[in-house]
Amino acid sequence: MPFYSKRDLEFQLFENLLVMELTRHTYFHDHTKEVFNMVLEAADQIAENYLKPILTEMDRKEPKLVDGKIKVHEGMKTIIRQFGENGWINATFPYDEGGQQLPTTLHMASGFIFQAANYSASVYPFLTTGAANLIRTFGNKELIEKFTPNMYTGKWQGTMALTEPDAGSSLSDISTTAYPTEKEGVYLIKGQKVYISCGDHDACENIIHLMLARIHGAPAGVKGISLFVVPQKRIPCGESNDVLTEGIYHKMGYKGAPIVHLMIGSNNGSEGFLVGEPHNGLSYMFQMMNEARIGVGLNATAIATAAYQASLAYAKERPQGRKIGEKDLSKPQIPIIQHADVKRMLLFQKAITEGSLALLLYCSKLSDIAHAAEEPEKEQAALLLDFLTPIAKSYPSEMCCLSTSAALQILGGAGYTTDFPIEQYYREARIHPIHEGTTGIHGLDLLGRKVLMKGGKALHLFGKEIATTILDAREINSLISYADTLEKYLGKAQQTTAHLLSKAGIKTEEFLADASLYLEYNGILTIAWQWLKQAIIAQEQLDKGNPEKSFYQGKIMCLRYFFEYELVKMDALGKRLVSPDMPTLDMHEEWF
Amino acid sequence: MPFYSKRDLEFQLFENLLVMELTRHTYFHDHTKEVFNMVLEAADQIAENYLKPILTEMDRKEPKLVDGKIKVHEGMKTIIRQFGENGWINATFPYDEGGQQLPTTLHMASGFIFQAANYSASVYPFLTTGAANLIRTFGNKELIEKFTPNMYTGKWQGTMALTEPDAGSSLSDISTTAYPTEKEGVYLIKGQKVYISCGDHDACENIIHLMLARIHGAPAGVKGISLFVVPQKRIPCGESNDVLTEGIYHKMGYKGAPIVHLMIGSNNGSEGFLVGEPHNGLSYMFQMMNEARIGVGLNATAIATAAYQASLAYAKERPQGRKIGEKDLSKPQIPIIQHADVKRMLLFQKAITEGSLALLLYCSKLSDIAHAAEEPEKEQAALLLDFLTPIAKSYPSEMCCLSTSAALQILGGAGYTTDFPIEQYYREARIHPIHEGTTGIHGLDLLGRKVLMKGGKALHLFGKEIATTILDAREINSLISYADTLEKYLGKAQQTTAHLLSKAGIKTEEFLADASLYLEYNGILTIAWQWLKQAIIAQEQLDKGNPEKSFYQGKIMCLRYFFEYELVKMDALGKRLVSPDMPTLDMHEEWF
Repeated sequence: MPFYSKRDLEFQLFENLLVMELTRHTYFHDHTKEVFNMVLEAADQIAENYLKPILTEMDRKEPKLVDGKIKVHEGMKTIIRQFGENGWINATFPYDEGGQQLPTTLHMASGFIFQAANYSASVYPFLTTGAANLIRTFGNKELIEKFTPNMYTGKWQGTMALTEPDAGSSLSDISTTAYPTEKEGVYLIKGQKVYISCGDHDACENIIHLMLARIHGAPAGVKGISLFVVPQKRIPCGESNDVLTEGIYHKMGYKGAPIVHLMIGSNNGSEGFLVGEPHNGLSYMFQMMNEARIGVGLNATAIATAAYQASLAYAKERPQGRKIGEKDLSKPQIPIIQHADVKRMLLFQKAITEGSLALLLYCSKLSDIAHAAEEPEKEQAALLLDFLTPIAKSYPSEMCCLSTSAALQILGGAGYTTDFPIEQYYREARIHPIHEGTTGIHGLDLLGRKVLMKGGKALHLFGKEIATTILDAREINSLISYADTLEKYLGKAQQTTAHLLSKAGIKTEEFLADASLYLEYNGILTIAWQWLKQAIIAQEQLDKGNPEKSFYQGKIMCLRYFFEYELVKMDALGKRLVSPDMPTLDMHEEWF
Repeated sequence: MPFYSKRDLEFQLFENLLVMELTRHTYFHDHTKEVFNMVLEAADQIAENYLKPILTEMDRKEPKLVDGKIKVHEGMKTIIRQFGENGWINATFPYDEGGQQLPTTLHMASGFIFQAANYSASVYPFLTTGAANLIRTFGNKELIEKFTPNMYTGKWQGTMALTEPDAGSSLSDISTTAYPTEKEGVYLIKGQKVYISCGDHDACENIIHLMLARIHGAPAGVKGISLFVVPQKRIPCGESNDVLTEGIYHKMGYKGAPIVHLMIGSNNGSEGFLVGEPHNGLSYMFQMMNEARIGVGLNATAIATAAYQASLAYAKERPQGRKIGEKDLSKPQIPIIQHADVKRMLLFQKAITEGSLALLLYCSKLSDIAHAAEEPEKEQAALLLDFLTPIAKSYPSEMCCLSTSAALQILGGAGYTTDFPIEQYYREARIHPIHEGTTGIHGLDLLGRKVLMKGGKALHLFGKEIATTILDAREINSLISYADTLEKYLGKAQQTTAHLLSKAGIKTEEFLADASLYLEYNGILTIAWQWLKQAIIAQEQLDKGNPEKSFYQGKIMCLRYFFEYELVKMDALGKRLVSPDMPTLDMHEEWF
């Protein structure tokens, strides 16, 4: 059974995003379409041969803490080695660092394949990439040479160690402390970290934590946070670095990846190496977090894509009921895909997952442009990416929970059983609105920060990009009405934003009270835009008589579905966002 | 930690529903408020002492199929015996049958307490009540005497055995066959049944299946289905009746109750006893199913209520972040309940769960009136209940999935772990949009059947009841604007219905294509009505200076929340429902 659509992934990369354009830039110059296709094919092979086969098993046989060490599914050793040997971990890094200068867009597209095959398994190498990227970007030569080579081969695992018992959404309250030693750049770390993904396991020989801590005496708040490399075992001798695994979290889903509670320096023996400048840790970390946030949106999309494919296959095969109005019960039952309500649930999933994938790969391409292009293109791409990040993290995360729920509903009782993978997808989807910043945090980020930044320049750019798509759509007869509709909603959204901004700095609590709804509101607008973009290409191909009529018709139908069933939700949200009534502010704790 | 609000349940029964009115009717004449309070208190004690303590354990230690027999959690024996001994199973039945003539409203209110404490455990006795009710209502004296006494004591388990591998949503395709024997009313049954709740377990001595089957040679479709009692063991000798447990389903949640696959008559030895007339089985079964459907809405509400309570307790205690605009990081963090977005998620849960509970108890009271009142009150109540049933089943089922999701979100990462009960509630909530008819089936029931029945009389009655509440609300100054708003939405809903009805019988597929959305649309309207009803009472108490100000203010805030955040969703749904574009009908299978 397919767990994603190869055809759609190709469409997104080569027809919708025109990813080959990236090879104009020196950094990506050597690549060809053949290379990209080989990359995707290689990802597909690993996913099919190594990740997919143990999807269910990794859920059923959870990692265990045995004698202070986490034991994970034995298949993970092979998988991580595969990732290392085939160069996936440092694929996007420069040639002179052993990388392949692969565009992030291709790396994310490959990641999408891995995540759709087995989300838990996909997490390990991606974390290592992110951690290594922090060291190579902000660390000195010594740190780079000491840590990254074994991370690239998959011998060592990388992590992001941020969260503490009292500092989850509120990172400014981090209290893990770094005490200077006599050796420059070397500190003794003391504290604890919770919810650390892959924070300990036996599929790698060492765990390299990229850890936020406060240098003793540093100022309070985010301005006093520094970034350290804290290995689990000291290098090169391999003795314990006093990073102890205190416990493992048992989770609803995503069980194959261990999430652990770490005690650091309980015996005063935890060495940490400062990365970059003191007190600059959070800004470094945000580089990785922004990438990770696009990654989370993609994880959610990949899981929902696998659920969509499973429910589609089921709907084609499962006979139940007859056409509305059919009274002759001697006729055989029809496959449920012929029922309007089932088609609605399938269209919903297709529209959410393919719309989200389009957005996330678009963001990845912006990241590549921001990295490799010249000014002013570079700055514009970075600005737009910054604006879109909370949307690209949250809309797919939230909606893919509903999308997997629709997949489960299509299977009825069967979907609720462990006989099908969908219940696992449903459980795995639910983490994404939480990790890498909850939806609430991203709402505040979008409205309280991104909309305002650089005098509203990013917001303006966002509107301009949508307007360009609207103009393009007007060139195609059958899309004119959709262009008009999107223009109307864009205009409304701009009015809504202006209304909210009139409260900024004056009634700050009111301004931000419904930031989560504002995020959802803009999420819908953004995905509607992505569907109009895709429909332009599809309609052009249909008009040209492209023989792949079914594929392109599917795109047009999603446009219709999204505008009819999803875009209209902006009406309700918009009405709420400009309403003067503020029940969430007026509510008292004791009234609950 | 509380798992429901006693105060709210009392409010619903005694202030909102005026349940004491029921004692006007002869059947309920003996009851007093003290009796009802004792019933609720007794339910609370069982829930607290027996059900709640094994909630988590029943999830972790799933029932197992061992040597052809299902073993369930050992605590279930005590629980079922408690239910039997204390008269819960036949509480609503007449005195002369050993019952207590308790109103269904009180039985449901008690059920709500059990379900909120431990949904899986609550299922067993409620199934027995439903099955016994079918026998006593439609069975002859012999059947009643043979089966019901041991069901009432909890010695035997009752079930509803409907679903077959090829007949889930499409009950007309049932193929289990009943072959007549020489004994009148006794048949040999052959077939298989799937997804049978409590279809086998070791906490009772026998399992009494109320089974749908087709008498050999009966007409096709629903008109050829008969109802049988098929015990697992023959009575009185206790030998096997050839009802074999073929397998157990492993489910995402609701794990404590076994759901099984049964083979009936594989060795030609399964005796079944015809209940009532031949070919009338589905109409009998629907009596139980309608009750069960209200029950499902209540299950969902109870689970979401427990999740709400858990997230509320957490939000009051968990410090994280500071007030918007607070720059002084030396100040301690504030409890997250003070953040607007968390209050929004709590208000959402409170509005959904208390709004749903109000509707479900209202439906239960209609059921009591339909049972015990005189005409014309009796018929009107039955008609309105019939209309509201798909809404009361589906709106709470669908929305309580989202409500438990909001509870989980409030806990963040902690909510995703098994350290808190919310992830279990999230998994358990998800079954309700599926069993007892999927949401899609109930959409068709509402629009394709209930709206049209008796020349639209039920629909008219529904509108009239809402209009009465609107009139009442106009008497209270602070509620006039809410009355106006609801009137506007009621008017819009009536226009939308008229628009859809213009297609009935002409374009049937178009008429019913978005029946699920129509169901959601009316669900929102219905709950808004329930909130206006509750707010009238609350505002009256506030105006009178009732010292329980916090409780009643909470009700008013929910009204405000629901009208601001939920009722507006009718705008988007209404727009869609009258749109001429029909993507779900135009979509082809091969375009997915």
